[in-house]
Amino acid sequence: MSPFMVMDIVAEAAKYDDAIHFEIGQPDLPPPPGVKRALADAVQRGGFSYTDSMGIAPLREKIAEHYRRSYALEIETRRILLTPGSSIAFMVAYQLTTEAGYSIAMGDPSYPCYRNFAYMVDCEALQIPLGVENGYCIEASALEEYDADVVHISSPSNPTGTLYPPEKLRSLCVECERRGISLISDELYHGLVYEGRAHSALEYFDDALVINGFSKYFCMPGLRLGWIIVPEKLCRAAEIIAQNLYISAPTPSQYAALEAFDYEYLDSVREVYAKRRDYLLQRLSKLFDISVSPMGAFYIWCDTSRYSDDSRSFAKELLENIHIAVTPGVDFGENGTKTHLRFSFTGDIEDMREGMDRLEEYLARR
Amino acid sequence: MSPFMVMDIVAEAAKYDDAIHFEIGQPDLPPPPGVKRALADAVQRGGFSYTDSMGIAPLREKIAEHYRRSYALEIETRRILLTPGSSIAFMVAYQLTTEAGYSIAMGDPSYPCYRNFAYMVDCEALQIPLGVENGYCIEASALEEYDADVVHISSPSNPTGTLYPPEKLRSLCVECERRGISLISDELYHGLVYEGRAHSALEYFDDALVINGFSKYFCMPGLRLGWIIVPEKLCRAAEIIAQNLYISAPTPSQYAALEAFDYEYLDSVREVYAKRRDYLLQRLSKLFDISVSPMGAFYIWCDTSRYSDDSRSFAKELLENIHIAVTPGVDFGENGTKTHLRFSFTGDIEDMREGMDRLEEYLARR
Repeated sequence: MSPFMVMDIVAEAAKYDDAIHFEIGQPDLPPPPGVKRALADAVQRGGFSYTDSMGIAPLREKIAEHYRRSYALEIETRRILLTPGSSIAFMVAYQLTTEAGYSIAMGDPSYPCYRNFAYMVDCEALQIPLGVENGYCIEASALEEYDADVVHISSPSNPTGTLYPPEKLRSLCVECERRGISLISDELYHGLVYEGRAHSALEYFDDALVINGFSKYFCMPGLRLGWIIVPEKLCRAAEIIAQNLYISAPTPSQYAALEAFDYEYLDSVREVYAKRRDYLLQRLSKLFDISVSPMGAFYIWCDTSRYSDDSRSFAKELLENIHIAVTPGVDFGENGTKTHLRFSFTGDIEDMREGMDRLEEYLARR
Repeated sequence: MSPFMVMDIVAEAAKYDDAIHFEIGQPDLPPPPGVKRALADAVQRGGFSYTDSMGIAPLREKIAEHYRRSYALEIETRRILLTPGSSIAFMVAYQLTTEAGYSIAMGDPSYPCYRNFAYMVDCEALQIPLGVENGYCIEASALEEYDADVVHISSPSNPTGTLYPPEKLRSLCVECERRGISLISDELYHGLVYEGRAHSALEYFDDALVINGFSKYFCMPGLRLGWIIVPEKLCRAAEIIAQNLYISAPTPSQYAALEAFDYEYLDSVREVYAKRRDYLLQRLSKLFDISVSPMGAFYIWCDTSRYSDDSRSFAKELLENIHIAVTPGVDFGENGTKTHLRFSFTGDIEDMREGMDRLEEYLARR
């Protein structure tokens, strides 16, 4: 298993009071105001017991309502399981769809946990190179070349912010269904979409396993609450895995999340990120080649090959010299990752301006 | 993977207003009063961010202090990881100590998750029969007979409440160390000990992996917070697993747990359970053979063979006829489990009295 290089960067950056943080993958904005109230109420009532392993019924109903509103989808609540963070939802998905020796297709670059989870369940990570040639998407045609038992996609993706266009998502879904391949769709950044509209894999493939959670769009990372939607036929198996793997998701967090679906507030969150994205994209474009502008999430994937062919040492250099923390591309795979850095726009524009001024000046005289 | 039968019982029991609950494995007592205050404070301050993957430093220091106080052990804080519930700590332990195809020795009967976790990581569960002949303990000599790569024990154990005597624990530790076998020691019920004194495997084997958490003795199950102590040589690997598997444990729960080590209050919790244990043991002894009186935890393992040789249907019968919910032995393995029921003493004495009166009367005329 590979460590997150970014964690070393985070630890190192903590030493500098004036560090500018482009490495962090979590919202700096507070959750919807009702969340804090609901959490305080749950604490007062003493929400210290386990819940049902699937999660509390009213929250699963709210999530079903969210799918009705966002995608015009009717999802039965028994298909929805709450998990202690979205990460554990990946483990549930892998347990449901794999056996030792299976092959799991995933993008390269993609979120490093995917590969590490594959390793944990003794499966092979089939890393499919993503680039301009395929629009940073796993295309249906890739399934001819790669012999996958499971396909794991993310849209919008980390680190490129790519949103699958509906036709590509549909084709991939149809092809997975036709071939009997399990599809795991990581939709954690849904809601944080700045161009186009996010589609759920469930719109095209009722048996897709869809993962989402409250850590990004809903701004509640520390409450560790995610969810997974499983196919009808796997409901019972999923419940058994939940009972064994984690008993139940944190109780106060579940009650707090009842107030998370405050769309007016969430719109304002998206607006803040949209402005930051525009700002950072415009500044970074002057320094680096950016072949994929992010349609969603809060990351920009920059080709830094004109300055370095070793993203790890380049990230280290920037941190040491100008106290700018960024994530080295190598965290995300092997495909061009030595010549890329990931910049997050999770800080405010004033901070980013200071950071970009430093970076611009530094690279000009380097 | 096998489901928890007890979950069906819980669901079924919820239909009866007058059900008496002997099936439940969670404390009904509130956590130490400071926990609620600390949780409320954390919510007010807005503890919505991830923490370090290992957990917040002050809590890891409090846990180190707990080992100093309880076992006179010096544990370096870098060996202590917070997990989202103790269940996930088992997954961390298995990821650290196993590869596909390894054999994990565990007791039969024992907590059903052990077997299911073994299945999840593609290992074989070597189920070692426990009974009066070995004092319901895995003995060092068993390692001659069973070819184990990992030994997983619990003390006090679920479902029998057995506390490993120090000499047995020491011998097993020495034998594991000598043979290069990893030892995982589940010490989740430490503190809830009514006879003798609980010893940590770490007293005898510095490389034991020790799991504990805040769900039982500290009465905080819904906050989903556990910990694992790993050998020095596995610290970095454990950190990487944590980063990938769950990012970090719930943030408000971690701050709340800073106030959990209120030993005066915790003594009163233990006293309550001690009284309940004495009461229930005395009542149950009149009806069933009890070959192992619980020295810790909050369960009594009853031989019900004089009434039934099918614990599942017997539990169902008791629930349907007299609205008494108990856990069928078959949840815990295969060794004599069809002729055993597990009774929890997590309800108050008045409730238990009502339940036992019903049971006594029912069995007398059955």
